[in-house]
Amino acid sequence: MMHIERLCLIGVGLIGGSWARALRDAGAVGEIIGCGRTEASLQRAVELGVIDRYECDPAQAVLGADMVVLGVPLGGMRGVLAAIRETLAPHAIITDVGSAKGSVVADAEAVFGRVPPRFVPGHPIAGTEKSGVEASFKELFRHRRVILTPVADTDPDAVATVRALWEVAGAEVVAMDVEHHDEVLAATSHLPHVLAYGLVDTLAHWDDNREIFQYAAGGFRDFTRIASSDPRMWRDICLANREALLTAMKRYITDLNSLLESVEQADGERLEAVFDNAKQARDHFISLLEQ
Amino acid sequence: MMHIERLCLIGVGLIGGSWARALRDAGAVGEIIGCGRTEASLQRAVELGVIDRYECDPAQAVLGADMVVLGVPLGGMRGVLAAIRETLAPHAIITDVGSAKGSVVADAEAVFGRVPPRFVPGHPIAGTEKSGVEASFKELFRHRRVILTPVADTDPDAVATVRALWEVAGAEVVAMDVEHHDEVLAATSHLPHVLAYGLVDTLAHWDDNREIFQYAAGGFRDFTRIASSDPRMWRDICLANREALLTAMKRYITDLNSLLESVEQADGERLEAVFDNAKQARDHFISLLEQ
Repeated sequence: MMHIERLCLIGVGLIGGSWARALRDAGAVGEIIGCGRTEASLQRAVELGVIDRYECDPAQAVLGADMVVLGVPLGGMRGVLAAIRETLAPHAIITDVGSAKGSVVADAEAVFGRVPPRFVPGHPIAGTEKSGVEASFKELFRHRRVILTPVADTDPDAVATVRALWEVAGAEVVAMDVEHHDEVLAATSHLPHVLAYGLVDTLAHWDDNREIFQYAAGGFRDFTRIASSDPRMWRDICLANREALLTAMKRYITDLNSLLESVEQADGERLEAVFDNAKQARDHFISLLEQ
Repeated sequence: MMHIERLCLIGVGLIGGSWARALRDAGAVGEIIGCGRTEASLQRAVELGVIDRYECDPAQAVLGADMVVLGVPLGGMRGVLAAIRETLAPHAIITDVGSAKGSVVADAEAVFGRVPPRFVPGHPIAGTEKSGVEASFKELFRHRRVILTPVADTDPDAVATVRALWEVAGAEVVAMDVEHHDEVLAATSHLPHVLAYGLVDTLAHWDDNREIFQYAAGGFRDFTRIASSDPRMWRDICLANREALLTAMKRYITDLNSLLESVEQADGERLEAVFDNAKQARDHFISLLEQ
């Protein structure tokens, strides 16, 4: 089995913490060094057994690491890459868990002149509306997809290692090109988050006393669950995947205006056709999820 | 305790069936007669013990009933009211469980010349994406709100009876005027349903092979759960509450265009402010739900 002697986790949150737990549980890793902005959170990560020790300075944290996982918000990627550039061991594999990949590739190019061959951009399609190391658990990636987006000259051995370590955590790994990843995720994740945040914000302004929320039911709770996600993280994702998100939003707004027209015209036939198609597509999605 | 000797349920689905189960469980009802369009479903309701017997003709079903519950889709209300007008006992209380109230009041006015004093329009804020008597269960309304929208000359005794019977099922009953109900529900329920159906439909058309759904995660499942609701029922709701829904949709589309502009301008500060406000409002909503 794949074994990493020294793993460095920069950003010890839900995703990085859960992967670390899974790797340790499987015996796939020797020592785990954490690094982050908040010392209290790093201390908590040590107490929880997620990391063995920590450094507050990324340049120090990566010293001697065989693999570095970047689990910081997308807005922090470039700064971290710049900070570790000089002290990173030449053999070290780097990967990240960011929700957009084009921006991370651009950050790597900006810092290193090109994407380092041992840098494997990645994105686990998993998570909850919670964040932080307290919320981490080793089963988070079980039966979840992880998308890796290697570029033309990414070292195949590095890709194989990262893939194997995700598989250890129970994930199913697929490869995709950077642009396709960003387009698919804009549609299936970034757009829904913007819609949910937007709806709750619209309703909150509608009724300054927020009395309106008293009459919302369980369907609303589920629909808006993702609006309880970390606002700063999602700000970063929207900015990092701006182009693809704009395309998705425009497409959705066009379709929504067309639905508005159907309601205006009391076109029951068209409404039922749209709702029916959506229900069928969702049932298809649920069967995919359950496979 | 309130006791209804003979209850007639027109439309024996998730809502009517669950209320019947709760009333019977509490001993609040003598005989329950069901009525519906599909005989197989009525037979199933008898097997499940939800109803005692059934009639296929609404005019026959309401004969001798002390209370009639209309649990049919909104598009079917007027026809049912017309069908039972001649055979309904003068003392019988009527109530409905429709998701829009203005249309039901208009239907009653159209059929009876005015809203009958013993007709209490109602709406339980409960349900799941499932439908049909098979999905019914007696706890559905526990700790849920039920909104009654009596009009000026509704008989207070009839309101008190309907209120008591909902309380037997564990619900918290509030009264509201018809227009306010329809506005609040358009915002908190009808709009979210349209948005969820619309998103899944947009994505399904985006990628004809629906490959895109393979990369959607749990957040997407929750966000789109309501898009698995019954398309015909929701078509009816959109048509029945058309004016309030149009207002809500327009307001949302305006706000969404403003969010689009923020993404276009890479205005991270504004995005974070909107997301943060939404998260706070949703946390407030969740605390209300849990109270």
